[in-house]
Amino acid sequence: MRVAVLRLGHRPERDKRITTHVGLVARAFGAEEMLLAGRDEKLVAGIEDVAERWGGDFRVKQVSSWRAETRRWKDDGGRIVHLTMYGTPLSKSIDEIRRSGDLMVVVGAEKVPPEIYEIADWNVGVGNQPHSEVAALAVFLDRLWEGEVLERGFRGKIEVVPSSRFKTVIERRGEDEG
Amino acid sequence: MRVAVLRLGHRPERDKRITTHVGLVARAFGAEEMLLAGRDEKLVAGIEDVAERWGGDFRVKQVSSWRAETRRWKDDGGRIVHLTMYGTPLSKSIDEIRRSGDLMVVVGAEKVPPEIYEIADWNVGVGNQPHSEVAALAVFLDRLWEGEVLERGFRGKIEVVPSSRFKTVIERRGEDEG
Repeated sequence: MRVAVLRLGHRPERDKRITTHVGLVARAFGAEEMLLAGRDEKLVAGIEDVAERWGGDFRVKQVSSWRAETRRWKDDGGRIVHLTMYGTPLSKSIDEIRRSGDLMVVVGAEKVPPEIYEIADWNVGVGNQPHSEVAALAVFLDRLWEGEVLERGFRGKIEVVPSSRFKTVIERRGEDEG
Repeated sequence: MRVAVLRLGHRPERDKRITTHVGLVARAFGAEEMLLAGRDEKLVAGIEDVAERWGGDFRVKQVSSWRAETRRWKDDGGRIVHLTMYGTPLSKSIDEIRRSGDLMVVVGAEKVPPEIYEIADWNVGVGNQPHSEVAALAVFLDRLWEGEVLERGFRGKIEVVPSSRFKTVIERRGEDEG
């Protein structure tokens, strides 16, 4: 199952940290890529720098037409879930979604274009209270993978050794650095 | 079980949106209050405005000494969990934490004072990859309450009617408005 995250409504100045958190959550919780509607080179570089050091194949793609991306995704047989506080309960649809094949997860900023409600196969609420697209994405992906995603290894140049008391980090040197 | 969230390292300009998301997640995922280390009246007003409209008893308390707050919490018999990407796996300790009584959940910004690792009863990693304190808090609380927290009602002036296609919101008028 391939998972891509589509981030809508990014405004470079205002949203840079929230969208960075969306991207890092997408990566850490098992998505392959984030599609960013719009352009923000600095943000992309920041997330890719983390991915480069911490491992895995996560990438960020800046897209000029999110509509074209959703159309292509559906043409290729993928399904789309839109996370929105107005949606139906996560617990009601997560089992169906888990069996659906490749999945695009759409997260907006404060306002999203109304047509996304039509394009999505599911409009799902991670609760129906106002909170955070970062939180919604994390909880959604955690439940999608039934909690197992946090145990995955990334084989990065940097790796944490989990500890109850200390910050312990291994840094691997590249082979060419001997 | 009472749950309070302690937010460390808030820098008003830089962190205003992330800390707002931390506060909204704390509320939506069942914490009673957020203790904010430092002062940021505007941020507090923003979160309390949401709480006032959307229901529940969530509050934000600005604290001048987070050390004094952790000491008081422990003196009252509460336990403390610090969420950190350097910590031990969530899955290993969540059952023990769930049985522990009143719980303070500490989330930092980029750097936290090293002594928090000593003060905490548990230093827990919501995974060991860099991602987001907003995400870590949400996933932690979701697992703490075993997913049930999202189904709770808040009986607010505003309430979403979950829908697969529409934004549907009920607004209740106060009784004094007839």
